[in-house]
Amino acid sequence: MVKTKKYLTIDGNHAASHIAYMFSEVAAIYPITPSSNMAENIDEWAANGRKNIFGETVEVKEMQSEAGAAGAVHGSLQAGALTTTYTASQGLLLMIPNMYKMAGELLPAVFHVSARSLAAQALSIFGDHSDVMSARQTGFAMLATGSVQQVMDLAGIAHLAAIKTRIPFMHFFDGFRTSHEIQKVEVMEQDDLERMLDKAALQKFRENALNPGHPVTRGTAQNPDIYFQAREAGNRFYDVIPDVVEEYMQEITKITGRPYHPFTYFGAEDAENVVIAMGSVTQTIKETVNYLNDKGEKVGLMIVHLYRPFSAKYFFRAMPKTVKRISVLDRTKEPVANGEPLYLDVRDLYYEKENQPIIVGGRYGLSSKDTTPAQITSVFDNLKQSEPKNQFTVGIVDDVTFTSLPQVPEFSTVPEGTFEAKFYGLGSDGTVGANKNSIKIIGDSTDKYVQAYFAYDSKKSGGITISHLRFGDSLIRSTYLVNSPDFVACHVPAYLLKYDMFEGMKKGGTFLLNSVWDEEETKNQLPNKMKKFMAENDIKFYTINATKLAEEIGLGTRTNTIMQSAFFKIAEVIPYVDAVKEMKTAIVKTFSMKGDKIVQMNYNAVDRGGDVTKIEVPSEWKEIKVNGELDEKEYPEFIKNFVNPINALKGDDLPVSAFLDREDGTLPQGTAAFEKRGVATHIPEWIADNCIQCNQCAYVCPHGVIRPFLFDANDKSKAPVEIETIPAVGKDLKGYE
Amino acid sequence: MVKTKKYLTIDGNHAASHIAYMFSEVAAIYPITPSSNMAENIDEWAANGRKNIFGETVEVKEMQSEAGAAGAVHGSLQAGALTTTYTASQGLLLMIPNMYKMAGELLPAVFHVSARSLAAQALSIFGDHSDVMSARQTGFAMLATGSVQQVMDLAGIAHLAAIKTRIPFMHFFDGFRTSHEIQKVEVMEQDDLERMLDKAALQKFRENALNPGHPVTRGTAQNPDIYFQAREAGNRFYDVIPDVVEEYMQEITKITGRPYHPFTYFGAEDAENVVIAMGSVTQTIKETVNYLNDKGEKVGLMIVHLYRPFSAKYFFRAMPKTVKRISVLDRTKEPVANGEPLYLDVRDLYYEKENQPIIVGGRYGLSSKDTTPAQITSVFDNLKQSEPKNQFTVGIVDDVTFTSLPQVPEFSTVPEGTFEAKFYGLGSDGTVGANKNSIKIIGDSTDKYVQAYFAYDSKKSGGITISHLRFGDSLIRSTYLVNSPDFVACHVPAYLLKYDMFEGMKKGGTFLLNSVWDEEETKNQLPNKMKKFMAENDIKFYTINATKLAEEIGLGTRTNTIMQSAFFKIAEVIPYVDAVKEMKTAIVKTFSMKGDKIVQMNYNAVDRGGDVTKIEVPSEWKEIKVNGELDEKEYPEFIKNFVNPINALKGDDLPVSAFLDREDGTLPQGTAAFEKRGVATHIPEWIADNCIQCNQCAYVCPHGVIRPFLFDANDKSKAPVEIETIPAVGKDLKGYE
Ligand code: SF4
Ligand code: SF4
Repeated sequence: MVKTKKYLTIDGNHAASHIAYMFSEVAAIYPITPSSNMAENIDEWAANGRKNIFGETVEVKEMQSEAGAAGAVHGSLQAGALTTTYTASQGLLLMIPNMYKMAGELLPAVFHVSARSLAAQALSIFGDHSDVMSARQTGFAMLATGSVQQVMDLAGIAHLAAIKTRIPFMHFFDGFRTSHEIQKVEVMEQDDLERMLDKAALQKFRENALNPGHPVTRGTAQNPDIYFQAREAGNRFYDVIPDVVEEYMQEITKITGRPYHPFTYFGAEDAENVVIAMGSVTQTIKETVNYLNDKGEKVGLMIVHLYRPFSAKYFFRAMPKTVKRISVLDRTKEPVANGEPLYLDVRDLYYEKENQPIIVGGRYGLSSKDTTPAQITSVFDNLKQSEPKNQFTVGIVDDVTFTSLPQVPEFSTVPEGTFEAKFYGLGSDGTVGANKNSIKIIGDSTDKYVQAYFAYDSKKSGGITISHLRFGDSLIRSTYLVNSPDFVACHVPAYLLKYDMFEGMKKGGTFLLNSVWDEEETKNQLPNKMKKFMAENDIKFYTINATKLAEEIGLGTRTNTIMQSAFFKIAEVIPYVDAVKEMKTAIVKTFSMKGDKIVQMNYNAVDRGGDVTKIEVPSEWKEIKVNGELDEKEYPEFIKNFVNPINALKGDDLPVSAFLDREDGTLPQGTAAFEKRGVATHIPEWIADNCIQCNQCAYVCPHGVIRPFLFDANDKSKAPVEIETIPAVGKDLKGYE
Repeated sequence: MVKTKKYLTIDGNHAASHIAYMFSEVAAIYPITPSSNMAENIDEWAANGRKNIFGETVEVKEMQSEAGAAGAVHGSLQAGALTTTYTASQGLLLMIPNMYKMAGELLPAVFHVSARSLAAQALSIFGDHSDVMSARQTGFAMLATGSVQQVMDLAGIAHLAAIKTRIPFMHFFDGFRTSHEIQKVEVMEQDDLERMLDKAALQKFRENALNPGHPVTRGTAQNPDIYFQAREAGNRFYDVIPDVVEEYMQEITKITGRPYHPFTYFGAEDAENVVIAMGSVTQTIKETVNYLNDKGEKVGLMIVHLYRPFSAKYFFRAMPKTVKRISVLDRTKEPVANGEPLYLDVRDLYYEKENQPIIVGGRYGLSSKDTTPAQITSVFDNLKQSEPKNQFTVGIVDDVTFTSLPQVPEFSTVPEGTFEAKFYGLGSDGTVGANKNSIKIIGDSTDKYVQAYFAYDSKKSGGITISHLRFGDSLIRSTYLVNSPDFVACHVPAYLLKYDMFEGMKKGGTFLLNSVWDEEETKNQLPNKMKKFMAENDIKFYTINATKLAEEIGLGTRTNTIMQSAFFKIAEVIPYVDAVKEMKTAIVKTFSMKGDKIVQMNYNAVDRGGDVTKIEVPSEWKEIKVNGELDEKEYPEFIKNFVNPINALKGDDLPVSAFLDREDGTLPQGTAAFEKRGVATHIPEWIADNCIQCNQCAYVCPHGVIRPFLFDANDKSKAPVEIETIPAVGKDLKGYE
């Protein structure tokens, strides 16, 4: 009997915590980006009384650091409670000492990790595998997933197999790309997973708990005479893991129809050139493999799901015998090793084998560097060389040590009929929230596959946010940014001059601008480059004065709901009346606790958001010459060649040589003088009459717009006349103003 | 001009700190076994005003944990001070997050690590490479040494190369085996190392320090746009390391005459079978290689000194082209990997090479498990098989997952003419200290090479200590315990019945017993097995009643000086009168601050220690039948098969199967009932008249000899008559006794 499938439009962290909740009795947490939502979800669900598989509410304990969380996991497991945690990056590093203990003591801990970079020359909150790779020697089994659906499907195996084998599991997926990407996924049901639970093993785990009723000695010190033997005694628990995982995967495949193995092969059965990788990049590689095979090539992808233990048996079972050349992609960098970890593992597997393929390795996607089909194509192209480059990089230009592969122009492998949209917003203006809401509406009220990903700059609040939305009738595997949008919305008028928002935009696409000007003035404000692009590419151009509308409605600077409504009005992905209904339902959910007035204001925003203006693009704009818009200011070299490209969202184009003599992370100071964001629509003003000289304005303003100075008569005499002053307050400050 | 060579008789930690002091401006420490002496030496020398290369006294800061020490190292380096630390095991794990930062920021940190096991199924303070291997991905260069002399010779390269290349270095050597082994070594002089210092690089490091006078921004956050490029920008600093290290090694070779390279080959030029290893085991392998080649084999050893970066260039430069089979020895275990790290590196190097050798890997010596020439022979034997076993173990019997190689009987490769001695003492009875003193006397007052190593059981104070001393005219490379002693001393009469002290003893050897009995009674007390052995092997037998003498002199239980003097009297390694002089000189050094009385007592101990009694071994002892000494007590299985072997120093013989169902480190309780050490010569007695019922006796006595109970009249009536009681003190305890 086939059950009705249930879907949720959620991100990877949600999917992981959905599963983790079922199997947790205790969660010991210390949230860290980008894993935080997992811990927060568990905490919230526990507060709401959600029940796990055992009919209990999870006990959540927040500790004082990740080291404490790991200690609590260890202790809780020794007390017989199934215990989980959620972490990333340096957080995981702090857990390493306890991880050795948990593995050594055969405790079924489960860690869900949204893999993230480690702080080296600089900190980074973004995604790669440096953190999980730094814990690969601890004795934890490691399970990798590459999409929100895979997280949903396979996260349970970490729990099930940990209980059955007694070996702790780390389940990891890519920070941000998977942890924060929203997709519509088929839900894994609690009762399906419960059926697979090895209840006898669980019972044994519980009976083995430390208990004053039947005391044992555990956690001893061992001497040279017996430590080695004891360490080898654990082998048999590891030996069975690949088979156990494969068995569970087959049960999951039965339920979901999606094929999973410790190593899952995808592509031509008789492939000669194969890429091996794990994590979200495998989705992009699938797209690329299909694209290349459609063009007549014979290529394939080996997806690593069970990374530790690394099973030769399942590897060779999955890999086509025809393979001649292999490229192993690692999302980490070990600067002192011959090669990255996954590459070394694969070279080892084929050593002493007959018909050894050529095996090269490369690094990609460090710290959420976007990895595109074009980059994957260059990886396959490399394999076609007579001597493929080894220890290469893709996604960057390395003009210093020349590791990078030749760049291939970007092209689209997104399934035909997929709608792609990009929204440029200001951090904390609500754009991201509105887009999350939009994609849920589309996901939940249509049959479409949906995807949403949000790129932030590091300045967060007040910085730029770009929302990348896709939806369509085919499964969306494009685990990279939208680079050929059908729709672009600019929520911040000031961005017109700052960013190249039309890059890669499709012919006939739509541009929606939040414009504070009327039609004529809008046309004046548009840079020539944009005008020309719109005319030449038949761009449909809409404006709405969301800034003014928001103020009128009483929402202040919160333009998000108006812009959301405008998007639904123009894009027509679902009938606009239905969209309005859904948006209003969401508003009630979000704001009903804040009172009717707030709800009504947001209702108004939805209604007014339909008032978009279509502006005809004059065909004579095609004739415009674009050249007079160069920034003529004199900048220091560092600002011109380093800061300005980064601020213009062109940091990806900086070659490695841009970091010469900055390798240690050192940067000059004084950039504030050149780095003006110019995004505010209002400027604070000092009102002398109201001032009590508390100086809090200087303290709180991130822009330093108001700065207090103490003037004596001499200073005053030299100040420009328009400078207003007031006499200084305070005993010792007589005579100062 | 050849300088006069200067020698010191010191341990590895001393050698490392001797060098580290020269190059340190700041030492941020948090001592952990077995690295503690390094930090302690630095601290002591700084307190005494010793000067480093720059004429300064080192500033020593003890932090609150290793994480703090690593943070302080990082900060201090950013402030422009050459900074070092010393750690091991979990201590190193806590430093990992900061290690990534130091490497990323190109800071010339130097860590000296006495490599130690990590706590897994049990904690262990002993030596292997698990800790340093868990930090191999941090971006630190890694330099391995294998003897006290190598520490002395090469530790400076860690400092010199870190300054020159800007990459932090971890210099590691084996915990206990090298860190605590005492050898007579040629001293590396400060001015020799100073000459090699790249002063321009040092100047650049200092100028690059954070300084409010010329502020820079450092330690930023980077986003996906630039992190990857910035990470690759560091490559060029790593690329030069092997050449820099080779250059410095050549300078060291010029000074010392000892050949060093990043990979140093030893053995037959046309070897077909080669073992690759790093650390102290390479000394034992050298002995074994010589032994086997003398027997006509063609074998070799590749010593890894520069482990990270792992240089293919220097590897292939050193390795004979004739190699056909390679066995890589790793002193760590990564239960979830295909193979251990060094093994994977070597397999990678030969991949795609012509004439690929067969490469297998194995584990040895976990947690200071002794690795002997016999074990190394079995590693070479394995290579002779048509299909050599891979992922093997040596030094244990694995009868569960069958990883272990067949055992070869122990044999001696110790250079002829080397005197080997073993001393059985009680933890904290001063035996170890006396033996350290003896070996220094021999080292400093003769031309002989000397070695001393001390094996402790985990009970430390009150547990057994075995001192292993060697001295002779040839270089001593035997980095394993003394297993064919010329001399055995038993400082604790109770050990006669407990331990097999004659195991492996040479024919014609000498046995010195601290006997509390007269000659007749001593003979009675000797177990038959010992008597028979002595008679059959022409053992010279001496006794001295050191226990009684120590009491008479006023030294209480400190029998060490008496036994030391007795050793010099019997062994005659140097004229006894000279030994007496040297011992007295040492006594003045150690005790002069405690007053003349103490000095005189120890002088007396030296003088009385000469009063040894030679006991003739009756030849009829050869006829004794040995069989009646079986322990007939009924023991639970766990005690009989697990606890008793361990307590009898036979823990090394326990096979892996002894740990079945104890893999997680769980042990039954109640062992105290069976585990009697019986080593005390006095027993505490409760004197009712003196008792004020403070109960401190119960609290402080590790043996629980006196335990307070509260009796009511009923209890009292049932107690044996000889139980003495006193009325209980305290208002609420009327009626109790
Ligand atoms: S000092 Fe600034 S914040 Fe304080 S009262 Fe005056 S203007 Fe306002
Ligand atoms: S209780 Fe023990 S330690 Fe205290 S006075 Fe009595 S015998 Fe001594």
